[in-house]
Amino acid sequence: MHSFRLGLVGIGKIARDQHLPAIAGNDRFALAAIASRHGRVDGVPNYPDTAAMIAGTELDAVSFCTPPEGRHALARIAIEAGKHVMLEKPPAATLSEIEALADLARARNVTLFTSWHSREAAGVGPARNWLSNREIKAVRIDWREDIRRWHPGQEWILAAGGFGVFDPGINALSIATAILPAPLFVEAATMDVPMGRAGPLAAELQLRCGDAKGRASFDFLQTGPQTWDIEVDTDAGTLRLSLGGSVLQLPGEAECTAADQEYPRLYARFAELLATGGSDVDVRPMRLVADAFLLAERREIEPFEF
Amino acid sequence: MHSFRLGLVGIGKIARDQHLPAIAGNDRFALAAIASRHGRVDGVPNYPDTAAMIAGTELDAVSFCTPPEGRHALARIAIEAGKHVMLEKPPAATLSEIEALADLARARNVTLFTSWHSREAAGVGPARNWLSNREIKAVRIDWREDIRRWHPGQEWILAAGGFGVFDPGINALSIATAILPAPLFVEAATMDVPMGRAGPLAAELQLRCGDAKGRASFDFLQTGPQTWDIEVDTDAGTLRLSLGGSVLQLPGEAECTAADQEYPRLYARFAELLATGGSDVDVRPMRLVADAFLLAERREIEPFEF
Repeated sequence: MHSFRLGLVGIGKIARDQHLPAIAGNDRFALAAIASRHGRVDGVPNYPDTAAMIAGTELDAVSFCTPPEGRHALARIAIEAGKHVMLEKPPAATLSEIEALADLARARNVTLFTSWHSREAAGVGPARNWLSNREIKAVRIDWREDIRRWHPGQEWILAAGGFGVFDPGINALSIATAILPAPLFVEAATMDVPMGRAGPLAAELQLRCGDAKGRASFDFLQTGPQTWDIEVDTDAGTLRLSLGGSVLQLPGEAECTAADQEYPRLYARFAELLATGGSDVDVRPMRLVADAFLLAERREIEPFEF
Repeated sequence: MHSFRLGLVGIGKIARDQHLPAIAGNDRFALAAIASRHGRVDGVPNYPDTAAMIAGTELDAVSFCTPPEGRHALARIAIEAGKHVMLEKPPAATLSEIEALADLARARNVTLFTSWHSREAAGVGPARNWLSNREIKAVRIDWREDIRRWHPGQEWILAAGGFGVFDPGINALSIATAILPAPLFVEAATMDVPMGRAGPLAAELQLRCGDAKGRASFDFLQTGPQTWDIEVDTDAGTLRLSLGGSVLQLPGEAECTAADQEYPRLYARFAELLATGGSDVDVRPMRLVADAFLLAERREIEPFEF
């Protein structure tokens, strides 16, 4: 079986923790080169940037896990060179950038995959199937984690364009848009923004799904047990996804859980898209974040230091 | 020639100033009914809301000039009843609402027209044609008006979801996206938000158009002469659109101006879409606003009173 020659751009924590092991474990991909300003990977050619990598090594596809700011310009280089592209979440810094990449990929007839890793959590597919023919009565999202534990010293996350608490919160929205059988809307939002920062440290969203009401609570200051839960009330009882989508509880059934396979499944999905020549560009999670920013009432809270 | 039986929803200032005269002046439309909580129009059945209007009078199409908040729910009623729909700008309160309406219109096989009246200003079409084969070097947008003169007492415009200075600014973005031959991006933004308000009273955007840089300055506190200008530097000199797109100056040519025909042209365009069964849903102006809100650095400025 032919394997796709893959270039990986951006060798930071997420590349080492997730992308490199997932690529190594998938025989449809052969890691052929990497590009990184600082990181190095043994056993393949290392390049300082995307353009040099594409010029130096024959590649079929490029996977980007650089920060969203600047990713559009890099992905554009790859697409214009005829390479298939996979993007970490969020796919770009703005919605207009994603649309431009999607237009370009269509014009160049290459695959574009805007990946949302949380959608590959074990409970998400079964949750979608179970909800597909239910009547939705209410949706509750609680995504509360400790910024100091998961993002130590990452000042950018609270800077302009860093999304603040929506950096993890967009994972919840990526799951919600994947499992709910009707479109999801933000109807109102409040954001708590520390003095001197641009990104919110907490946010409350009023949601609507079809004719049902919902809410989301995002918080970056939760110490102790961490909360990544989605509950959906339906005409057949309440579905509960917890631990970021990995644990599914259906009404009257035992909890169902499975080992984390998010990134192996992302790369399996990318291989499938490459084999069939399709693209998967879903902007809905980021569009909901942008809608929340559009509608938000902001409250200034006390300064925050990491 | 068959004329389309049109219902108009939302009888406020914009309906009386623009929509009713434009409809009366277009023989492809016959105003068949109106819906409004407070406004009344003589000579046609008046209804308290959209659903009652659709139930009470045979209509082909419905035009909405109610405020964007709530417009999605009303437009959905019309589309689900099989009516063609035209929306004032901005088309809805959020991007997700517009996409949902576009999906619904496709599914029901009705025309949806997200109108941007400034695109019908006299200079816009000629500007687009002239720019279509130029190399863009720089883009400058200056949209500065007096909120107290154009929006007296309209507290909602500075409330959450009211867009603040982007309410007029989106008109500039609707023109810019229509005339520029390459995609437009927001790269950074600053917003000045009065204490106790949610919407910005001024904003500065860093833009990019293809590989060219640009900027937009939006201000709601300009007294005296008002400024609604777009300048585009190209390899063939500088194009200048002023007075909201109605005056076009091409390099080395005399200023070209024409009478305001924005709303008559919007309804002519809607009639054309109805005749051909097409839709025209362009979210780019609003997507750029949402991108600016996503990326913005906010500065709190002194309280503002109308």
